[in-house]
Amino acid sequence: MVKIGIVGGTGYTGVELLRLLAAHPKAELRVITSRSEEGMAVADMFPNLRGHVDLKFSAPDVAVLQQCDVVFFATPNGIAMTQVRELLDAGVKVIDLAADFRLKDVDVWQHWYGMEHACPELIEEAVYGLPEINREAIKAARLVANPGCYPTAVTLGYLPLLEQGVIGTDGLVADCKSGASGAGRGANVGTLLCEVDSSFKAYAAAGHRHLPEIREKLGLVANEKVGLTFVPHLLPMIRGIHATLYGRLKDTSVDLQALFEQRYAAEPFVDVLPAGSHPETRTVRGGNMCRLALHRQQGSDTVIILSVIDNLVKGAAGQAVQNMNIMCGLEERSGLDVIAVLP
Amino acid sequence: MVKIGIVGGTGYTGVELLRLLAAHPKAELRVITSRSEEGMAVADMFPNLRGHVDLKFSAPDVAVLQQCDVVFFATPNGIAMTQVRELLDAGVKVIDLAADFRLKDVDVWQHWYGMEHACPELIEEAVYGLPEINREAIKAARLVANPGCYPTAVTLGYLPLLEQGVIGTDGLVADCKSGASGAGRGANVGTLLCEVDSSFKAYAAAGHRHLPEIREKLGLVANEKVGLTFVPHLLPMIRGIHATLYGRLKDTSVDLQALFEQRYAAEPFVDVLPAGSHPETRTVRGGNMCRLALHRQQGSDTVIILSVIDNLVKGAAGQAVQNMNIMCGLEERSGLDVIAVLP
Amino acid sequence: MVKIGIVGGTGYTGVELLRLLAAHPKAELRVITSRSEEGMAVADMFPNLRGHVDLKFSAPDVAVLQQCDVVFFATPNGIAMTQVRELLDAGVKVIDLAADFRLKDVDVWQHWYGMEHACPELIEEAVYGLPEINREAIKAARLVANPGCYPTAVTLGYLPLLEQGVIGTDGLVADCKSGASGAGRGANVGTLLCEVDSSFKAYAAAGHRHLPEIREKLGLVANEKVGLTFVPHLLPMIRGIHATLYGRLKDTSVDLQALFEQRYAAEPFVDVLPAGSHPETRTVRGGNMCRLALHRQQGSDTVIILSVIDNLVKGAAGQAVQNMNIMCGLEERSGLDVIAVLP
Amino acid sequence: MVKIGIVGGTGYTGVELLRLLAAHPKAELRVITSRSEEGMAVADMFPNLRGHVDLKFSAPDVAVLQQCDVVFFATPNGIAMTQVRELLDAGVKVIDLAADFRLKDVDVWQHWYGMEHACPELIEEAVYGLPEINREAIKAARLVANPGCYPTAVTLGYLPLLEQGVIGTDGLVADCKSGASGAGRGANVGTLLCEVDSSFKAYAAAGHRHLPEIREKLGLVANEKVGLTFVPHLLPMIRGIHATLYGRLKDTSVDLQALFEQRYAAEPFVDVLPAGSHPETRTVRGGNMCRLALHRQQGSDTVIILSVIDNLVKGAAGQAVQNMNIMCGLEERSGLDVIAVLP
Repeated sequence: MVKIGIVGGTGYTGVELLRLLAAHPKAELRVITSRSEEGMAVADMFPNLRGHVDLKFSAPDVAVLQQCDVVFFATPNGIAMTQVRELLDAGVKVIDLAADFRLKDVDVWQHWYGMEHACPELIEEAVYGLPEINREAIKAARLVANPGCYPTAVTLGYLPLLEQGVIGTDGLVADCKSGASGAGRGANVGTLLCEVDSSFKAYAAAGHRHLPEIREKLGLVANEKVGLTFVPHLLPMIRGIHATLYGRLKDTSVDLQALFEQRYAAEPFVDVLPAGSHPETRTVRGGNMCRLALHRQQGSDTVIILSVIDNLVKGAAGQAVQNMNIMCGLEERSGLDVIAVLP
Repeated sequence: MVKIGIVGGTGYTGVELLRLLAAHPKAELRVITSRSEEGMAVADMFPNLRGHVDLKFSAPDVAVLQQCDVVFFATPNGIAMTQVRELLDAGVKVIDLAADFRLKDVDVWQHWYGMEHACPELIEEAVYGLPEINREAIKAARLVANPGCYPTAVTLGYLPLLEQGVIGTDGLVADCKSGASGAGRGANVGTLLCEVDSSFKAYAAAGHRHLPEIREKLGLVANEKVGLTFVPHLLPMIRGIHATLYGRLKDTSVDLQALFEQRYAAEPFVDVLPAGSHPETRTVRGGNMCRLALHRQQGSDTVIILSVIDNLVKGAAGQAVQNMNIMCGLEERSGLDVIAVLP
Repeated sequence: MVKIGIVGGTGYTGVELLRLLAAHPKAELRVITSRSEEGMAVADMFPNLRGHVDLKFSAPDVAVLQQCDVVFFATPNGIAMTQVRELLDAGVKVIDLAADFRLKDVDVWQHWYGMEHACPELIEEAVYGLPEINREAIKAARLVANPGCYPTAVTLGYLPLLEQGVIGTDGLVADCKSGASGAGRGANVGTLLCEVDSSFKAYAAAGHRHLPEIREKLGLVANEKVGLTFVPHLLPMIRGIHATLYGRLKDTSVDLQALFEQRYAAEPFVDVLPAGSHPETRTVRGGNMCRLALHRQQGSDTVIILSVIDNLVKGAAGQAVQNMNIMCGLEERSGLDVIAVLP
Repeated sequence: MVKIGIVGGTGYTGVELLRLLAAHPKAELRVITSRSEEGMAVADMFPNLRGHVDLKFSAPDVAVLQQCDVVFFATPNGIAMTQVRELLDAGVKVIDLAADFRLKDVDVWQHWYGMEHACPELIEEAVYGLPEINREAIKAARLVANPGCYPTAVTLGYLPLLEQGVIGTDGLVADCKSGASGAGRGANVGTLLCEVDSSFKAYAAAGHRHLPEIREKLGLVANEKVGLTFVPHLLPMIRGIHATLYGRLKDTSVDLQALFEQRYAAEPFVDVLPAGSHPETRTVRGGNMCRLALHRQQGSDTVIILSVIDNLVKGAAGQAVQNMNIMCGLEERSGLDVIAVLP
């Protein structure tokens, strides 16, 4: 059994990690920390876990975390980078669900996150935890930077096209929509039901922190700088990301459906839908799947890629568990092979 | 492996049965019938099942169903009663998720369902599939009438009180609220998103078909006729029933919390919350649990019981699988021990 | 034109007052105060008001408020009672949308609101602003205590029955459901979309602050103490209250439909639906109407009253404007005769 | 008073027309037809209209309609074109809310709508009822083709840019999201609450009927053929369209904010938000306003236009009333100057 610690488990990625790990056949939850909720039973805060998780939140204690095999950071940005070093030194594998180690360019990171990086020397070693592009590196990694939710949906959508050089790398448009759980569990007027329900809006249209992450990763895939416009929107619902991606084909004769099906044939968590489909976010709710579909309008050279994930699963906690499975030599699907509840 | 057939699987209880049985370690889906969708892959209609269910809908064929160990009827009322006989005769166990065998009083049934009963001779044999009151009978049953969703939530809420004679049997009020999935997957103006979302209303306030079912079952528990008012309401959401139940205590000194905790201590799917709690329907979404809490206001002799279930799981498909487990000698929790997705 | 001041306009009752008063033919918005948002344009916070309201939030200034004809307090409980005196002394009429002057029994008030009353000498003078029972007193009032949202829906539902002594005064059950806007615009984890959407629960089942208010008002109507159980629930939507009310008829031969139609025949904002109806909260959204319907089940002596209002309109700002109209000798419907947006 | 007839008033655009016209100071509802609901009181179907609309649905009767000043067709596509001629001949002004007269190219129309046009000779005369581009022609029109909902939001967003030639006309991307009311009030599994709520998807990504309409109108504005990709998506809510529009600037030094503010300075129903804003659909719910905002990301040459309308108001019934006001010489804002209900 893999001994698990979770740092900062009171947010939505935290409870999602708990849900997945409590049902994982090879994982054993050892400790979950929260300074503010020390002593509270996890199942009192999240009653869906009653009967499944007996842990209480405890104050952070490095010595206890060092006895774990894997530690997940489900903390705000800027926390993991101050604590990772001493865990790695003790032989613990670390998966950071926040953004501390996602960007290779520390200057860009510091610009967008508005703080100095506390641990730049580990950035190079950290592996970007998108198994569909980095599986081998993840196997060997001590430190995995779990991707952002939008970057996961967008990168998986563009991946086959950019790898094969089928579309131009300039003028890409990623129009993305997310449920409100992406904004976290903090008390915030902007995500009250009365502010979000029955309405829809874009946000951060002039630039969102996931923009440099997506650009960097797509650039690595394309092996050149990409020009991308990324606009996130807030959906009046809890879970789900839908990325609608646009690119210009260099050659309109390419068989897009075949290209995607081949690229993802062996991937356990990417599902290319039949031609003509429109993936719905509800079909991946609670599950670790990314579902994709391709469209063109009347022979146009613009390709439309539709990509859906559950932002808390494939976009956060599920992908973290997938990374854990790979890092620990477990079956990659282990604990993640759930069926979405529909309707 | 228990060989399973499902008759009529295109509705919401059908897809829920599929979701639960596809993940059930001891069940093997053999056949699912739908006259209208014959030949269509189940996963094309319900894409959450892609990769988990390979079956296609087939035209109903008694010979095929007779080779199953258990057949579920997820059909409209009035279908099962015409087909059960030949399945039982072939040694198949049958679980009807519709109402055909729920009432012992055939006259009452015919009045409320507006048709003649096609198979009254099996009514006596049929076991009402609420394991918390009929577990031993279910073990031996060939034919189980799976309870209605409202009756499940209401009966489990009143059960300890009526068994012990702690409340009066007259003047009971069951104010119940259900998500729209209880109305089924039929094309219907009344359950369009635009008609249901962001609004709330009662319906059938002058009398709903579940009223005689609840009265009959509570009467059996109390061993006398009960006077009950039952008002269902439609919630602007998909899943979940919340029953708010009221009764008058004969003796206000009784320890209600202890009474409920003892009654349900051994029940795998009834969870009595700590004193002072308010169960949320989301904590049981997708799961087979019923969560209960008790309240009184300032020493009043009125007891308030709060009871929540997922109407499609403990109120339908999950309870049906629980009954199957009991009928087939399997572990009762088998395939049902899932954690609700929250948020 | 009636010169209007609003104290504390950044919450949901505040913006609703602004919406109604901006369109009111006889009202002139003079000042709206908010200590925290001083200097901010109202329409920047609430863009629906762009082009309709040019005011900025200003710091509270008694001298400015004293030049108004009517001042509304849309503040938290405990504020109005400290400021009313000096406004009344200056000849200003005051309508408090909070609870400071709703209860006549100051001890009960202090118990439930957990503070000492700062102005008990005005409690007797304050008129409870439910026009359907207090219209004449409101006409002459200097200080109106605008009723709570639940008390409005419940009192209007029971009113004809208790006035005529048609039901017993003991064992009343008011099962009430409210949209989340009733909880206000404060940053609060409990009312985040992710906590409220797609779920349903009761709250304060052991006793809510509106319980003593309802009991006191029903007691005045019935001319005797009433025994009432009141359970509020939180709906996954923004606006609307649905009260489902239960009582026992002393005489089952009374014509309930006629009783209600006669009682409310002259009331501009109470609409008794045809027999057999089920009022929907959406039909009153944004409007000042209360819609009622009556039911009995199979000749039972339990009467079911269904009562819906918009909690922010007839349950708050709309009723406040109705009270202003009455206090100022305006046409009672003035500014309130809007049609709900449906769907 | 303008005498009004409505043909086909049982859908969502019908009830919206009724709501707006019932409150219109210069309009008098004379007749509303529905073959299926003949004899039913309008307010029985739409209880929000109780006390405001006394009409009953009547069977269609040309003689009665011919006595109206203006007749609105709120019918499915293909109805108005068979009835317009005899109304125009009687001197009635006609506004068709369906698509029969929206496209000037009858071949394209017949291709996308799958039927032969019954009245091609009136296509040239029909005026496309987008006042922001056709106000003068609407003043003189006998027959107005009320624009589609998506085309309204998209055209108003691109209008200043294409008129001034500021962006390229190729590679435009219109990523649009609509509430479910756009799909109408028909009984349809696809728009059940249980199918739409808490989920999000694109639809018709390979080509939607509004695509040729948008292309034709943008082409007229730009005075050349435009290359546009248009992808509609279904929001889990009732009302509102959000169009996110992308184009490439020919010259990045243009002052976009000023360009839009000047273009729309005199428009009563287009509101350009301050720089940096993100319009929310809820701020236009129930109102006839289109709200716009502009963004660029880090000096990129891609301009992002955010455009929101209420699909049933500025996208249908409200724009129809605006057209009526213009056609009849009334104040253009008449009956339309309402404030959105928020929250």
